[in-house]
Amino acid sequence: MDIKLLEVDTLESALEKLHKNYLAAHEGKGLSSQRVEKLPLSECYNKVLAEDIMSPENIPAFNRSTVDGYALCAKDTQGASESLPVFLDIVGEVKMGEVPDFTINPGQCAYVPTGGALPDGADGVAMVEHCQLFGPAQVAVYSSLSFGHNMVFQGDDVSRGQTILKKGSIIEPADMGLLASIGKTEILTYKPWKISIISTGDEIVNPSCTPNPGQMRDVNTYGLIGEIKRLGFDVAGCRLVRDDYKMLKDAAIEAAKVSDVVLISGGSSKGKKDVTEEVLDDITSGGVFVHGLAVKPGKPTILATDEQGIIFIGLPGHPVAALLIFRLLIGGLWEMEIGGSKGLGAMPHKAKMAVNIAASPGRKTFQLVTLEKGLAVPVLGKSGLIATMSKAHGYIVMDVNQEGINRGEEVEVWPL
Amino acid sequence: MDIKLLEVDTLESALEKLHKNYLAAHEGKGLSSQRVEKLPLSECYNKVLAEDIMSPENIPAFNRSTVDGYALCAKDTQGASESLPVFLDIVGEVKMGEVPDFTINPGQCAYVPTGGALPDGADGVAMVEHCQLFGPAQVAVYSSLSFGHNMVFQGDDVSRGQTILKKGSIIEPADMGLLASIGKTEILTYKPWKISIISTGDEIVNPSCTPNPGQMRDVNTYGLIGEIKRLGFDVAGCRLVRDDYKMLKDAAIEAAKVSDVVLISGGSSKGKKDVTEEVLDDITSGGVFVHGLAVKPGKPTILATDEQGIIFIGLPGHPVAALLIFRLLIGGLWEMEIGGSKGLGAMPHKAKMAVNIAASPGRKTFQLVTLEKGLAVPVLGKSGLIATMSKAHGYIVMDVNQEGINRGEEVEVWPL
Repeated sequence: MDIKLLEVDTLESALEKLHKNYLAAHEGKGLSSQRVEKLPLSECYNKVLAEDIMSPENIPAFNRSTVDGYALCAKDTQGASESLPVFLDIVGEVKMGEVPDFTINPGQCAYVPTGGALPDGADGVAMVEHCQLFGPAQVAVYSSLSFGHNMVFQGDDVSRGQTILKKGSIIEPADMGLLASIGKTEILTYKPWKISIISTGDEIVNPSCTPNPGQMRDVNTYGLIGEIKRLGFDVAGCRLVRDDYKMLKDAAIEAAKVSDVVLISGGSSKGKKDVTEEVLDDITSGGVFVHGLAVKPGKPTILATDEQGIIFIGLPGHPVAALLIFRLLIGGLWEMEIGGSKGLGAMPHKAKMAVNIAASPGRKTFQLVTLEKGLAVPVLGKSGLIATMSKAHGYIVMDVNQEGINRGEEVEVWPL
Repeated sequence: MDIKLLEVDTLESALEKLHKNYLAAHEGKGLSSQRVEKLPLSECYNKVLAEDIMSPENIPAFNRSTVDGYALCAKDTQGASESLPVFLDIVGEVKMGEVPDFTINPGQCAYVPTGGALPDGADGVAMVEHCQLFGPAQVAVYSSLSFGHNMVFQGDDVSRGQTILKKGSIIEPADMGLLASIGKTEILTYKPWKISIISTGDEIVNPSCTPNPGQMRDVNTYGLIGEIKRLGFDVAGCRLVRDDYKMLKDAAIEAAKVSDVVLISGGSSKGKKDVTEEVLDDITSGGVFVHGLAVKPGKPTILATDEQGIIFIGLPGHPVAALLIFRLLIGGLWEMEIGGSKGLGAMPHKAKMAVNIAASPGRKTFQLVTLEKGLAVPVLGKSGLIATMSKAHGYIVMDVNQEGINRGEEVEVWPL
């Protein structure tokens, strides 16, 4: 039995090689490394912006009231109180959606509804709750207002020429409102990658089947479908094939026709039946450039790109490793190339380690944890157990040179 | 001008009233308060489970190797090392997907690939990297193995009868793998609510239009579309109507026909043109049961439910308040009734307050913040400015009786 050992890359060097090969393939063909599409604003949630967005206007376009009340000159109210109101003359009423054709001079005021345009001269609004009418043309104001109270000035929200959102940022709900406010209703976004999944293994059966003794159901396809969707990508297709050179090669070639990324789950280590490396060497131009990662879990990982820049990745068969490596490499490349979230969802939670924990020597170690009252508690269980990942909230990372983490040490918990 | 003041509810009492009225309407009609649907597993990402999931089987169904190597009796390797190997007789080879028809006795071993079934008698696997062949029938093992090394036992992942996922939990990628592992390919999930948005305001125009002086574009519809999608709900439809009793009433009645929840944005305070309360009083059985929240921002909020249990919510016109109140009330009710995330995404980040900050007396105050190096930094800006929300990472909450938070105090930052 001729066994070759894996020559492992660090996660960082694998990602760097992947990025380099991906770019080289696209540049070699004069292809843009990433396709874009214009989407209507209502369909942009969670998409990645492919353009910087500059506002052509001031928002609001006019001084606006933020309450129902009386527009006035703020300094007229100096010293006004519950017991000592200031009396002002009503000189008009602002209609919603119209610009008032009168001006407020000292001693005067005008009713303005929430969102209404302030008349020239007004620089504050007294809430109706703090006012009382005296006859048809006079109002008593029972509170002292500072300059700009209960109003927003032209351009307070967004000023003309300001870059409000940057290329590469993920579009969140408030961003959609912001884009609507400047009238941007068609948005240039990056097309999500289309990703195919090929699951290999003579022992693997479709989950709807009852496995024979020695067989097991295909777990990775479904975990990966979830992860693809979580990262905002599209599933291009799924196939289950045996550990057979010809069948895997045909499936990979077919998948590449409709995909940006082809995931091959299983068959990536160096066992007798592991044909993924041979197939990828044969169907890609440069051949496999990473075979083995100094990562736990996730050692048996294969990377190749073809002439079109299609990425092929042989993932470990262990479910936890497969999901993690997919996220780190494909999610990682997308972030390097395109962009990523600016939100809390992309930030780790700070926690203290609940117990002492050892790293795997010479490998970057990813440990699943739950987060309980500020403590990171390792979810124990052997590599590859999908139930452990389902229980976990996130993971902590120990670097290649780290021996472990002591109880009470501060750690960062990354979301699953 | 006859001005009624708002009688405000706390957020908690509003949510409680909403829940009570929602349940009463459904029970009164003999309706289930929540519809369910069976979905294929591949479409279940981010859906909410409507059943407890129990495993009918042990997973794995047999003792499995987690490496390519030699299945053996672990105690045979006691004391084996780089310089002092143990020699074992090869008595067979395990084929993937088949159960071996031989047994391992002390002094014996058999090649087994990753994922292969262990022969009876084997209770450990030596990795090929730690073995060397001596002739066709003997192997030297250069490392000491403990019981169960490099293998998983039957039922290690999931044991028969175990509840693996609970009703009300959100289905995440690893859960999809776990469901596949037990052969559960059709999943009972809660149907997401269908939510309509009606935006009102004489000054509001469609974002694709250029506003006249005094007008502004409809921001809230787009922010709310994003928020509806973020929470996993479906958008049933969007309408923009003027502040007109008849138009708003017709629009609300139409929307209710296709929705579980009807959002009416704007027109919810007590100004002359604010007709939302009147409309909702007229078209719902019990009438408006909340008008005004002791929440900042978000005071002008209206709640009503009709006989069918359709929820009507009049949201504040200020964009930040509209998004926040929608999330707190509708997201909050969904969580009470259905379930919610178990992941980190639903947990607040711990941080220290970067500066002193004051609460709004008598109101539960939500303050937008960014999270920078463990510090919560308030995003300043007047109420209603959508740009402030777009910049923020999350928010902190100050309770009704809280005066403020001092610099350096620990706070919880909730994700936006």
